[in-house]
Amino acid sequence: MNDIHGLAVHAAGAHLLPFKYDAGELKPNEVAIRISHCGVCHSDIHLIDNDWGISKYPFIPGHEIVGTVTAIGADVRDRRVGERVGVGWQADSCGICEWCRQGDEHLCAKSQPTCVGRHGGYADGIRVNSRFAIPVPEVLESENVAPLLCGGITVYSPLRNHGVRPSSRVGVVGIGGLGHLGIQFAKAFGAEVTALSTSKDKEEEARSFGAHHFVNTRDTGALKALAGSFDLILCTVSADQDWQAFVNALRPKGTLCVVGAAPSAMQIQPFSLIAGQKAVSGSPTGSPRDLHEMLDVAARHGIKAMTERFPMSAANEAITKVKKSQVRYRAVLTN
Amino acid sequence: MNDIHGLAVHAAGAHLLPFKYDAGELKPNEVAIRISHCGVCHSDIHLIDNDWGISKYPFIPGHEIVGTVTAIGADVRDRRVGERVGVGWQADSCGICEWCRQGDEHLCAKSQPTCVGRHGGYADGIRVNSRFAIPVPEVLESENVAPLLCGGITVYSPLRNHGVRPSSRVGVVGIGGLGHLGIQFAKAFGAEVTALSTSKDKEEEARSFGAHHFVNTRDTGALKALAGSFDLILCTVSADQDWQAFVNALRPKGTLCVVGAAPSAMQIQPFSLIAGQKAVSGSPTGSPRDLHEMLDVAARHGIKAMTERFPMSAANEAITKVKKSQVRYRAVLTN
Repeated sequence: MNDIHGLAVHAAGAHLLPFKYDAGELKPNEVAIRISHCGVCHSDIHLIDNDWGISKYPFIPGHEIVGTVTAIGADVRDRRVGERVGVGWQADSCGICEWCRQGDEHLCAKSQPTCVGRHGGYADGIRVNSRFAIPVPEVLESENVAPLLCGGITVYSPLRNHGVRPSSRVGVVGIGGLGHLGIQFAKAFGAEVTALSTSKDKEEEARSFGAHHFVNTRDTGALKALAGSFDLILCTVSADQDWQAFVNALRPKGTLCVVGAAPSAMQIQPFSLIAGQKAVSGSPTGSPRDLHEMLDVAARHGIKAMTERFPMSAANEAITKVKKSQVRYRAVLTN
Repeated sequence: MNDIHGLAVHAAGAHLLPFKYDAGELKPNEVAIRISHCGVCHSDIHLIDNDWGISKYPFIPGHEIVGTVTAIGADVRDRRVGERVGVGWQADSCGICEWCRQGDEHLCAKSQPTCVGRHGGYADGIRVNSRFAIPVPEVLESENVAPLLCGGITVYSPLRNHGVRPSSRVGVVGIGGLGHLGIQFAKAFGAEVTALSTSKDKEEEARSFGAHHFVNTRDTGALKALAGSFDLILCTVSADQDWQAFVNALRPKGTLCVVGAAPSAMQIQPFSLIAGQKAVSGSPTGSPRDLHEMLDVAARHGIKAMTERFPMSAANEAITKVKKSQVRYRAVLTN
């Protein structure tokens, strides 16, 4: 009766195999969701491979979920049966700590990621705390929304939190799963947007997402010529970078914000931060409040993930293509 | 008639020698100041030694100046003759760029440091743009105010700009010329203040400045035990540090702000910034607006630099003692 069918990984790096679990009784604060779409995020692959050492096997990956509420727990007042909702990286939090109290649930020390120690969205259903089931505005297509729930919020929140506004000059490093959303959202904030990429063939696409300028950072001297250009540089790539060059590309009071976890330590000269009153920051996923807000902004501004669709049964194939960076720009599994 | 007498350095690292220059006609936007006190800042020593490659010889050092306005230019409306004023790192700015327009004159690209390409405060007089002559509240002693004009503002501005408030937990690294002021100002913002020092004999003094806690960072495991403790860590020392340990000592959304220019690149793991939504920032001196505000706060909260007084003629001796870190905590020259 409460069985959920999905695709689970049983050991680090293994292929996904059909898997069934009993979800048990619906808890008072939970909603049950019938999943229609689930994005394939790079974080899923890190979890599958146990790159972060936090994976618990077997588990069903997936944390960019769109579906329909099929049941609500006895205490749920914010969602109703039949509503279309999205679920992102987080499925629950303690609800009582200072971070939860101030609407920063994503910083809660007891935050429960959707597919760490729980089963995620490569499945036909899921249950989450109703606070983390975010209603999806009617005008948005489920397939284009799914990747917003992790990829989108990861770029939306730092733009919001760093106070981007119509006078801002924003650089988005990397035109991929995150970057192509970052450009669109930065445009929606009214900023002048520069796409920074190592792939010169992405210029046209970057401009179609809303970039006003395109810079091929492989061009000799290109980064140096950008000294003093940006209020915010949002770095969406996970590879090591010439961080000092990015800091130099900031205007006074500018911030370099990283959302991709490059493997090596960043090297930054203290004096370069001091002289221009600059900062280097990081940003994880976002809060439920930000998720609500982001979906409203996406609806208002026609922001959508560029997707490639796979049937749920082809999840292994989707993962292989994502690993090879062959997907432009987000893979979405559908039931 | 317009001669100013001071002590100048004629080559990198040289001793100060008596020096006279003709200040010429008073410009319409300038005030002439008769100097009573001038602090000896570490930046003076860097300039004397040409550590930053920007020194122009001969020059009179000194940029923590207190004195009395003796004349005002034809266009000056904000100052009057007889007023006691202070002058800090900056003596002029373009006045028309976006940074000047928004009250961030210290970030103006044409900012004129008080003693770079100009003659500073180890002298009997100086002339500066009236916007950079800050009135000193009556209740403050000139000797204790002088070091606030560079050392004080350097710690005041980041506390202000990072939004420190009574619920904040602030760590101040280094109990010296800057740190002993940082502790006092952080206390004035109402924060819970922890002094972080490598000198265990400074605990009592740190507490007298207002620190609620004292941590000897040389104690094994002391820094590690502070993981997740601070909203802001203000690092006032100019030596290389275990930056990663300070980032780890931040609470979610916390910032490590450096105001001392350590020589080597900081090494920071990107993931450690991302996970807790943290930042590493730098801060230079502050704006005239902040200088006004800081002196008001100092007056209201009884904040004073702990000083050692030297006659102007003993400037070389004062510099030697500052170089040897034998002054607790700021040397002040008096006419």
